[in-house]
Amino acid sequence: MEQTRGRFALCPRWIVPVVPEGELVENHAVVVEDGRISEIPPLADLDSDWVGIERIDLPGRALIPGLINCHTHSAMTLLRGLADDLPLMVWLGEHIWPAEQRWVGPDYVRDGTELALAEMLTGGTTCFNDNYFFPDVTAACAVRAGMRAVIGLPIINMSTAWADSESACFERGLSVHQDLMSEPLVSTAFAPHAPYTVSDAGFERIATLAEEMDVPVHLHLLEAAGEVENSIEQTGLHPLDRLDRLGLLGPRLLAVHMTQLDDQDMDRDARHGVHVLHCPASNLKLASGLCPVEALDRRGVNIAIGTDGAASNNTLDMFAEMRLAALLAKGVSGDPETIPAPRALSMATIQAARALGLEEAIGSIEPGKQADLAAVDLDWQSTGPVHNVISQLVYATDRRQVTDVWVAGKRLVADRELLALNRDQLKEQARRWQQKLKPS
Amino acid sequence: MEQTRGRFALCPRWIVPVVPEGELVENHAVVVEDGRISEIPPLADLDSDWVGIERIDLPGRALIPGLINCHTHSAMTLLRGLADDLPLMVWLGEHIWPAEQRWVGPDYVRDGTELALAEMLTGGTTCFNDNYFFPDVTAACAVRAGMRAVIGLPIINMSTAWADSESACFERGLSVHQDLMSEPLVSTAFAPHAPYTVSDAGFERIATLAEEMDVPVHLHLLEAAGEVENSIEQTGLHPLDRLDRLGLLGPRLLAVHMTQLDDQDMDRDARHGVHVLHCPASNLKLASGLCPVEALDRRGVNIAIGTDGAASNNTLDMFAEMRLAALLAKGVSGDPETIPAPRALSMATIQAARALGLEEAIGSIEPGKQADLAAVDLDWQSTGPVHNVISQLVYATDRRQVTDVWVAGKRLVADRELLALNRDQLKEQARRWQQKLKPS
Repeated sequence: MEQTRGRFALCPRWIVPVVPEGELVENHAVVVEDGRISEIPPLADLDSDWVGIERIDLPGRALIPGLINCHTHSAMTLLRGLADDLPLMVWLGEHIWPAEQRWVGPDYVRDGTELALAEMLTGGTTCFNDNYFFPDVTAACAVRAGMRAVIGLPIINMSTAWADSESACFERGLSVHQDLMSEPLVSTAFAPHAPYTVSDAGFERIATLAEEMDVPVHLHLLEAAGEVENSIEQTGLHPLDRLDRLGLLGPRLLAVHMTQLDDQDMDRDARHGVHVLHCPASNLKLASGLCPVEALDRRGVNIAIGTDGAASNNTLDMFAEMRLAALLAKGVSGDPETIPAPRALSMATIQAARALGLEEAIGSIEPGKQADLAAVDLDWQSTGPVHNVISQLVYATDRRQVTDVWVAGKRLVADRELLALNRDQLKEQARRWQQKLKPS
Repeated sequence: MEQTRGRFALCPRWIVPVVPEGELVENHAVVVEDGRISEIPPLADLDSDWVGIERIDLPGRALIPGLINCHTHSAMTLLRGLADDLPLMVWLGEHIWPAEQRWVGPDYVRDGTELALAEMLTGGTTCFNDNYFFPDVTAACAVRAGMRAVIGLPIINMSTAWADSESACFERGLSVHQDLMSEPLVSTAFAPHAPYTVSDAGFERIATLAEEMDVPVHLHLLEAAGEVENSIEQTGLHPLDRLDRLGLLGPRLLAVHMTQLDDQDMDRDARHGVHVLHCPASNLKLASGLCPVEALDRRGVNIAIGTDGAASNNTLDMFAEMRLAALLAKGVSGDPETIPAPRALSMATIQAARALGLEEAIGSIEPGKQADLAAVDLDWQSTGPVHNVISQLVYATDRRQVTDVWVAGKRLVADRELLALNRDQLKEQARRWQQKLKPS
């Protein structure tokens, strides 16, 4: 149960490096030194070239890059199942917002985020792109647990428990950014809520600051029907035109959902290098619309997968999300060859890293990259026979087959045991919030 | 690890009886006698009214009716992941059919089916509606494992390893039916492959025999585009017109897939009491089309869920299938209120029992019914807080949260350990077939 640092070699049955896409490596080890992948030598060379190295055998396991949950609201685990099967505005207006208004604060965010980190880590997710209030608390949870995160600095033109105005959002957000500068695992992004809740001045300031600070802009965009019409009515502009005019359309923009796109919009996204963060379960559950993944992928748009928050999914299960993304893209496009298993895995790893500006650090198993890794047990009767490892990972694997997880070389899950957080305490936290949120 | 028969009381945290839909029972026990549910008394009465009864405590668990996988080809587990991300005809013609032609026989069907039974049982599925060659072998596997099954008697107008003609299919099928008459857990259905592979005479004979034998007719119907046009070209009739004329349209008909339906077709299905067996993962993966679940449900058509075979899913995971059915119906219809969690659970239990003609015996937790039950552990950090038990079961539960499973009062899974089959032997079987099917 050691939390290994230093120098060690992982010896799985298979390595799925993700880059190059579709490749499978056998009979090799992944050597980790000081948190990074230093080399991927043949197993046969390990004893001679790496004398005395600590060896961690992973029989029957596929070693994959840690999954990256590219859009979530971690703390919303506390609202999981609080209100389901409702129209978006009833769900938000009568259930989610009132609960948030009453309860959101540092304690809530800490407890909810810890629950989320446990769920994500044990399911093979090593990095998440978050968007919620009290980002300082979310960041502190990630740092404590040793998990990698991109923490959204929320910008919203209304009063919330976090900040009482748009300008206060900037003030508090910039201070959080400053405080996190020295954290090796945590970085930030601007997280303007949506086009309809952020002012022109706010967007312009984000565009300028994001450039200066070299951070992404993480935005709910074209999530549901009506957004285009409302924007034209209120601002005279299509949301993409407005964002373009305000300097936001570009490779820093991480556009979440994107279910309301025509061909021109997609061409434009491709031209500007906008990344699409695709949340298939949430889009279906809220009946928001269907993201045209096949058409975007065909245009070369970089697509990454996210679970959204647990209130609209209702899990943070990236294996389920990857599978759903691969299946749904086929059904929506009518093309069974689109988003094959290796591409779906890329969308949950290297393409997510690319969106987050972390492509040099994470998202694949390559020498020089951070040792963010997950071992997945395929030696189980329900994933046999293993005719094709990547197909099994995407179409047939449960997240509970994840046995071991490392972030920057530190082992956070060992043999299915979560080392990073205390499970009993988490269950107790969940129980306490259940009583508060929905007294029975 | 005892395989309890006789008389015992299950004491879970929650009981989800499914009938009435949406109901949740707390502080009660389920008393089982001789394989049946005899009573559901308050926990407080257990000690006084049931002196000395064996008590099985299931803390943190929800007790649900065993799930019913209403359409599968069990033995196809051996082909899981053999060929993915391909158009239907390439997938079938170049991969699945050649593999089947080369290998299908009693050994293949036994090994594949046992793998499927293990996967289904550990995932909370207690009954399956099967359609494959060598139904005698499939039935024998189910009997040995103690699992409930409806075994399809395949009828196909071509030569296969099972029978060399349509009439031979009847001969062999009727003999299997005869042999299974005395089995308490196993019954049969006619399983004509599809409209385009069964003759008019074959369908007429099925209609007559199904009535005489009182069994359902389990048919792939309107699975993909082109089926209607081809039928009109070849027979002059829409498949539903042809089936109507041949006496098949009625409440015995279990129509699998049904992705190519217009309003008239749906009205007609409703009028005739045709059951729809919905396989959302397979429909998406093969890009067959989308079953209009919301519109069928609104018309009162009885819909049950199936995984299809593992070659096109690629799991036999009824929790995943239930979740996908609930999500996809919302996305396809644009209505987030359609197929709420309790209805999705009904589609995997009581509605499946109704389709199979087993509504009096299984599909809900009610006195008099067979004790086909699954206990699901919700006391896990990734399904907390438990604001709503049924929502958790449908939207957030992994099949691995199933801890215990009973069929007709016999415990086949105890504390996550599969008692009905030998896991090591299954893994070895899978490995052997992997080598044969896809030599590396």
